[in-house]
Amino acid sequence: MAKLWIAVDWGTSNLRVWVMRGDKVLAGLSSDAGMGGLAPEDFESVLIDLIGEYLPEQGRTDVICCGMVGAAQGWQDAGYTGAPCPPLNPLDMVEVATRDPRLAVRILPGVKQVTPADVMRGEETQIAGLLAKAPDIEGLVCLPGTHSKWVFVRQGAIEGFRTYLTGELFALLTRQSVLRHSTGAGWQSEGFLEGLSTGLEREGGGFADLFSVRADMLIGGRSTDFLTAKLSGLLLGSELAAVRGLWAVDNVQIVGDARLAQHYQQALEYIGATVVLHDASDVTLMGLTQAWNDLSEGKP
Amino acid sequence: MAKLWIAVDWGTSNLRVWVMRGDKVLAGLSSDAGMGGLAPEDFESVLIDLIGEYLPEQGRTDVICCGMVGAAQGWQDAGYTGAPCPPLNPLDMVEVATRDPRLAVRILPGVKQVTPADVMRGEETQIAGLLAKAPDIEGLVCLPGTHSKWVFVRQGAIEGFRTYLTGELFALLTRQSVLRHSTGAGWQSEGFLEGLSTGLEREGGGFADLFSVRADMLIGGRSTDFLTAKLSGLLLGSELAAVRGLWAVDNVQIVGDARLAQHYQQALEYIGATVVLHDASDVTLMGLTQAWNDLSEGKP
Repeated sequence: MAKLWIAVDWGTSNLRVWVMRGDKVLAGLSSDAGMGGLAPEDFESVLIDLIGEYLPEQGRTDVICCGMVGAAQGWQDAGYTGAPCPPLNPLDMVEVATRDPRLAVRILPGVKQVTPADVMRGEETQIAGLLAKAPDIEGLVCLPGTHSKWVFVRQGAIEGFRTYLTGELFALLTRQSVLRHSTGAGWQSEGFLEGLSTGLEREGGGFADLFSVRADMLIGGRSTDFLTAKLSGLLLGSELAAVRGLWAVDNVQIVGDARLAQHYQQALEYIGATVVLHDASDVTLMGLTQAWNDLSEGKP
Repeated sequence: MAKLWIAVDWGTSNLRVWVMRGDKVLAGLSSDAGMGGLAPEDFESVLIDLIGEYLPEQGRTDVICCGMVGAAQGWQDAGYTGAPCPPLNPLDMVEVATRDPRLAVRILPGVKQVTPADVMRGEETQIAGLLAKAPDIEGLVCLPGTHSKWVFVRQGAIEGFRTYLTGELFALLTRQSVLRHSTGAGWQSEGFLEGLSTGLEREGGGFADLFSVRADMLIGGRSTDFLTAKLSGLLLGSELAAVRGLWAVDNVQIVGDARLAQHYQQALEYIGATVVLHDASDVTLMGLTQAWNDLSEGKP
């Protein structure tokens, strides 16, 4: 019988855990105890609270972690591997000393790029999972989120990548800027396409047109549903314009959760790209499984 | 002896009042009772608290107001005059009914532009003051602020204008986004120039490079002083790139307060423009004085 081990995706605001036997999921668990709210000494007890009942009394159980848990402010700093590099770098994993003798915790490093300066932590594991699922994938992988990442993959390696603050800007602008008066929870697709087209075409893209989201309401009588979608389109159009300045955007793998991924898909199809969607949670688990397999087989 | 009247610049977060006799200032007063915190029924008593002691008992004293006091959520909606138009439009002033018989309150309208949709409220009075000071000014006027405005002036009229959220974005990003960890109160000019150059040159400008402000700290070891200035440069460079796409940026009048105006001046001189600085408070009062003169002379 395959060994029991624990896969952990520990982000800033959430903790997701799978209790595994080989590549079979015995249990999926989650908690809102993200690394953002924890001090280094808290991580072990939070983890034990979640998985304690599954741990055999004898021996150490492998725990493989990815994500912000490995940041300087996390459980332990797992550093970065420098791109270009494979997405998984088992030699660079850090071992974390634990008080509980049932645990053998390892954290995967992030990936850094020196010029232009950029970092990722967690997304590299999703890229590894994507490559485990479809080893021949080459080209652009888009990972939408608060900080979206675009990763150029070739021959199984991360060649380069860029991060955009699009999601965080959208949240700040709709909740806390003057644009909060003209945006809301609704969505009207015509607005998204109008914003997208402006964001893609103009110098400075959607950035230069943000105030129009206010003015369109004051003097244009546009609805908040229209303008919320327009703001999203302006920002996403700007992001796409920047990405197009770096890479050919023709075939794109999107790794993300449903709603946000659909907006990226719509935007990419608008500019003629072919898109394949992948579930973020699935590929994260596949990446962690690949890391555990590499570790078990003594690779590299 | 010239008549006593009251000049009022009532913005979202501040109220500024000058007690005038003709074009002479008898007293300058201010309060933090901006329109943002007031309901329509509050404005009159706030004003009386500030100026009551100066009002003659007999007759009505003219009170000329500009700014957000004339917004739909202000004291009374003063509407907008449509550009192209002169900056002052006395025929469009609205009279506000008051309980106190000593007041004759009028609010100047804002200016709107239909395509692309944009609005201003208060800046038009500053443009009027600038033209009162130097009637021959033609070309671009830059009014830095939370929402900076660029106004193209020709033959004494506002031909067109654009608003950018640059100041508000800088505040949100440095206080509330992930970039708050790599920015602070300091300033290092080399950072400003690096950001400015990137913001001006790239497709999507500084928008695409915002995350570098985080990565430059994590893996580049840059100081928060450098990165705060870099972020400002990225945003200002993006704004300038957008403005350059609309108008020739060679001679620019800047109307603004010291520190922010200096950053705009530095950026404009970096791209070879000739800049003249004007104090915002001075030109506001000159614009209000011009409006009162027009009213007194029965113009137009």
